[in-house]
Amino acid sequence: MNANPQFIAATAHVDEAAVQPLPNSRKVYVEGSRPDIRVPMRAISQADTPASFGAEPNPPVYVYDCSGPYTDPEAQIDIRTGLAALRAGWIEERNDTDALTGPSSEYGLERLNDSALTAMRFPGLVRQPRRAKAGKNVTQMHYARQGIITPEMEYVAIRENLRRKEYIAALKSAGPTGLKMAELLGRQHRGQNYGAALPEEITPEFVRSEIARGRAIIPANINHPETEPMIIGRNFLVKINANIGNSALGSSIQEEVEKMTWAIRWGGDTVMDLSTGKNIHETREWIIRNSPVPIGTVPIYQALEKVDGKAENLTWEMFRDTLIEQAEQGVDYFTIHAGVRLAHVPLTAKRMTGIVSRGGSIMAKWCLAHHKESFLYTHFEDICAIMKAYDVSFSLGDGLRPGSIYDANDEAQLAELKTLGELTQIAWKHDCQVMIEGPGHVPMQLIKENMDLQLAWCDEAPFYTLGPLTTDIAPGYDHITSAIGAAQIGWYGTAMLCYVTPKEHLGLPDKDDVKDGIMAYKIAAHAADLAKGHPGAQIRDNALSKARFEFRWEDQFNLGLDPDKAREFHDETLPKDSAKVAHFCSMCGPHFCSMKITQDVRDYAAQQGLSEQDALQKGMEVKAVEFVKQGAEIYRKA
Amino acid sequence: MNANPQFIAATAHVDEAAVQPLPNSRKVYVEGSRPDIRVPMRAISQADTPASFGAEPNPPVYVYDCSGPYTDPEAQIDIRTGLAALRAGWIEERNDTDALTGPSSEYGLERLNDSALTAMRFPGLVRQPRRAKAGKNVTQMHYARQGIITPEMEYVAIRENLRRKEYIAALKSAGPTGLKMAELLGRQHRGQNYGAALPEEITPEFVRSEIARGRAIIPANINHPETEPMIIGRNFLVKINANIGNSALGSSIQEEVEKMTWAIRWGGDTVMDLSTGKNIHETREWIIRNSPVPIGTVPIYQALEKVDGKAENLTWEMFRDTLIEQAEQGVDYFTIHAGVRLAHVPLTAKRMTGIVSRGGSIMAKWCLAHHKESFLYTHFEDICAIMKAYDVSFSLGDGLRPGSIYDANDEAQLAELKTLGELTQIAWKHDCQVMIEGPGHVPMQLIKENMDLQLAWCDEAPFYTLGPLTTDIAPGYDHITSAIGAAQIGWYGTAMLCYVTPKEHLGLPDKDDVKDGIMAYKIAAHAADLAKGHPGAQIRDNALSKARFEFRWEDQFNLGLDPDKAREFHDETLPKDSAKVAHFCSMCGPHFCSMKITQDVRDYAAQQGLSEQDALQKGMEVKAVEFVKQGAEIYRKA
Repeated sequence: MNANPQFIAATAHVDEAAVQPLPNSRKVYVEGSRPDIRVPMRAISQADTPASFGAEPNPPVYVYDCSGPYTDPEAQIDIRTGLAALRAGWIEERNDTDALTGPSSEYGLERLNDSALTAMRFPGLVRQPRRAKAGKNVTQMHYARQGIITPEMEYVAIRENLRRKEYIAALKSAGPTGLKMAELLGRQHRGQNYGAALPEEITPEFVRSEIARGRAIIPANINHPETEPMIIGRNFLVKINANIGNSALGSSIQEEVEKMTWAIRWGGDTVMDLSTGKNIHETREWIIRNSPVPIGTVPIYQALEKVDGKAENLTWEMFRDTLIEQAEQGVDYFTIHAGVRLAHVPLTAKRMTGIVSRGGSIMAKWCLAHHKESFLYTHFEDICAIMKAYDVSFSLGDGLRPGSIYDANDEAQLAELKTLGELTQIAWKHDCQVMIEGPGHVPMQLIKENMDLQLAWCDEAPFYTLGPLTTDIAPGYDHITSAIGAAQIGWYGTAMLCYVTPKEHLGLPDKDDVKDGIMAYKIAAHAADLAKGHPGAQIRDNALSKARFEFRWEDQFNLGLDPDKAREFHDETLPKDSAKVAHFCSMCGPHFCSMKITQDVRDYAAQQGLSEQDALQKGMEVKAVEFVKQGAEIYRKA
Repeated sequence: MNANPQFIAATAHVDEAAVQPLPNSRKVYVEGSRPDIRVPMRAISQADTPASFGAEPNPPVYVYDCSGPYTDPEAQIDIRTGLAALRAGWIEERNDTDALTGPSSEYGLERLNDSALTAMRFPGLVRQPRRAKAGKNVTQMHYARQGIITPEMEYVAIRENLRRKEYIAALKSAGPTGLKMAELLGRQHRGQNYGAALPEEITPEFVRSEIARGRAIIPANINHPETEPMIIGRNFLVKINANIGNSALGSSIQEEVEKMTWAIRWGGDTVMDLSTGKNIHETREWIIRNSPVPIGTVPIYQALEKVDGKAENLTWEMFRDTLIEQAEQGVDYFTIHAGVRLAHVPLTAKRMTGIVSRGGSIMAKWCLAHHKESFLYTHFEDICAIMKAYDVSFSLGDGLRPGSIYDANDEAQLAELKTLGELTQIAWKHDCQVMIEGPGHVPMQLIKENMDLQLAWCDEAPFYTLGPLTTDIAPGYDHITSAIGAAQIGWYGTAMLCYVTPKEHLGLPDKDDVKDGIMAYKIAAHAADLAKGHPGAQIRDNALSKARFEFRWEDQFNLGLDPDKAREFHDETLPKDSAKVAHFCSMCGPHFCSMKITQDVRDYAAQQGLSEQDALQKGMEVKAVEFVKQGAEIYRKA
């Protein structure tokens, strides 16, 4: 168990593991229409193809990079000062917000004035929170609906395209075999997109139109100017979220910041801080000031702490204060369980596992204790008013999600989903950005119904699902039970997948679990992109497979999601450096390697001046003799 | 790297980790129509429901048990003598086989007479190999087509049913809430079975008819009487295979036997020995004599060793001798790459990763070197003659399976599959049992086409797939990239899933990798069973979820696929024993636990003498007051 040592802000330091550049990778910034739009990507360099395979140059592959300045060797990282506020100018130049003199929430003020917290408080400059000027609406959706393309929208357009055109162009110009390489490495299977509209290239205008339509969101609180904008929507790359957060039982502020930097290093697109222990206001400040990705929270968790865990003592007023407190810190999206209505609670009575969402059960308890409609539901428009003053996006929580295969797609779950659809329309009336949370535990044959109903009832607002877990029988492996479901629901149209770690149902994830969860979900999200036929999604698979075929071991590792693990596994069997240029691997050993036969065929054809197919189809009898004469030994010395 | 130490038979011993009983589990044997049909299952005992949840008795849950006598405390295990020959009597009483005086293969004789091998040779009794009497056919398919229900068929029928009827009956009789419990724990979602025919109960006659039809196989070589029969077919539980085997670079005989016992402990239904290094004849003997599950091999691997890795030097005669050698040792199924025809090789020329199947590339090289049709293809009926003399099942190999997303479902792959369909008809003409191997690397949207074509072209012969891997970009995590694909293809109708370990593409799996691969594939197979709506598949999920809801931590661990891992993860955050009876977990801490709210609702209703739904729907206002009055504190002391 974690000893929860006292955290001292003055000595806080970045996790060294999070600031190492990834092997053979370099951070590149793609400039947009103005110099302050600089979109980060990771360029993975590759070796040339070995001479025996044709000596082709292999241009760098660009991959999506969530890691922020941490992996930029040029960046000065000090978590005590936080990241640079790259969006500050964009927010200011819109001239629709005011800088406040201090927190406008009671709780925010109280914490600010509590000198006992000084030692642990984020020591950077005291930010002046911003809020929309009276009568103004500062959401990306509001701008989009007015026809405005914000720098954030242009940023995500550049980001989604991943320099694919430039990569293909580089291939084409790469020596005599360039055109052939471009054809090979750019090819992709036709997808099955289930009604998604996936343009060849993402334009800023496409981003704007999707946001205006409510089909995508850019979570970007005006008080989190440190974010590198990203987009969540079914017509964009599938994203993943990583949950972090301490509980009464574990983990310090430093550990939570480390989990955040660790999560984004491996590809967390957003991070939710689900802390429920002490000092969650201060923990959150540290996380937000240091996070280049959007941060989500479940404000009811903190509200509950404020009433010492007695759900029935929650009030709208103190919940409202909590929303403002967090909005002014810069939380980018709030999970709001406004779909847990009084009338829905009885629908859970016959369940196997009742209500498993913490937020859902808090609200159910409140409803029962007061015999009243949920204050989240009755005050929903008041919540919208807050959200649009800071551009906090809604993540409409699925408080009645199934907690077991048994409870999947039941009346309670679907009644709530229907309510979330109604609430979506209300939020959209206020130009608030919305996504919808989804299950949970669902067997494979019932997954698609979730997606179909969500698209229909919530009018294509982005779906954001937890898994789903496709069986209950594997505690300790729920990153896998759920990656199976996540890949499928992502394929069907889910925009963001909330990771599940191996510790699900058993304990709080540590850094290893965070990485395992991220990896399983990066796989699920990418498998979904491939299956949808997302343009260019196959580029990385193709590049890695070519490296594999050509025995470019280092490139194979580096193009993968986790170069460290791949290298470590390889070295367990073949530890010597020479093995990494060997034309065989430990599975077959040096005597006969399956991957080399095709190259022999190709080489042979080339020597004969024939196309590969011709060489094989015409006059094979004669050639067979020559093939043997040339020494049909497959293995070549490295 | 493994030092490959000299293996000494006299000191060989069982892996202690493989003979520990699983927690709260006991081996039970279900007797069939005769006393020598004793079908093993694992009964997992459960605690009673805690008083606060209703004090219900929870009867044991029966799960499929591949672990053989190793987990039976009554069994005497000595790997130097091997397992008892439980099928010996059944084979003898059919009176259609002869015991030979010794191996009838040249190589088998040569090894037997090589005194240098004495120290490493399996020291148990020298078995007399059996072979069909002249003119006899000893395949299970042959018996099935004659209307004979063999003991093996009855055995697998009992095994597949998993005492589900008895479990439900035990529930019904479990106290006053028994009927309600039976309804709850026996309920299951309707499946989507894509045309599978899944009877409520598997009868011996159903098994016979499926085998006669070719839709299922029981791999059961007459020279492997130690096997506990199991069945592979789309209308039965989805099975998984674990690959083991040393290469020139690693691993000793003792290690391979350990991998086998480890694999079956965690649920490997069959094991393939893919050894390619030295002494594979002796390694195989050790494995077979100690294996209660069917063993598969790829005989061409050993044949290649016999010609020092020079594929072009392979001949039908020496291959034939290898088949007989292995058949007389007791291999239950052979991967035969007879679908790699000369004309198919040119179809691979434009691939990204060429031929990645080792067997496929061996045969491609042979075809090219000789410019002749593959001897496996031209001698296919000769092979059938051997198979039916020992009842070795065909696993028709997919030598041209795609090795990258790019190559999925291409012309080469499909041309081979079509050929495998033709060969299936030939094998069936001989009453030989057949399954068909499948890919490989396939993006999700192309998986179903593989299944549909396989069912159509191979006339529903069982499909046996490697994954498929749904993306290429995650070396080090290919157990996950492939479990995603395996779950889907299992759902669509694949009968057995060949596992992929985290070491795939990188190195040889060690014991940890074997377990990780098994777990990912047990999950995939079970998710598929649930999705198909396999009768009773949800029983284990329901039981585990009920335990979870009732905070029966130990039962939750023990009902899972890996109790050790679940317990270890739980204890990292809450190590004290008391935590295992605590009514909360480390995620929410003691102050507010989401899972307890529903129980409060239920308790409250019970106190009022109302049904749960009524209590909530009628007169809730009054009750709300009482709910609070009773002290709405959720947490209860353990």
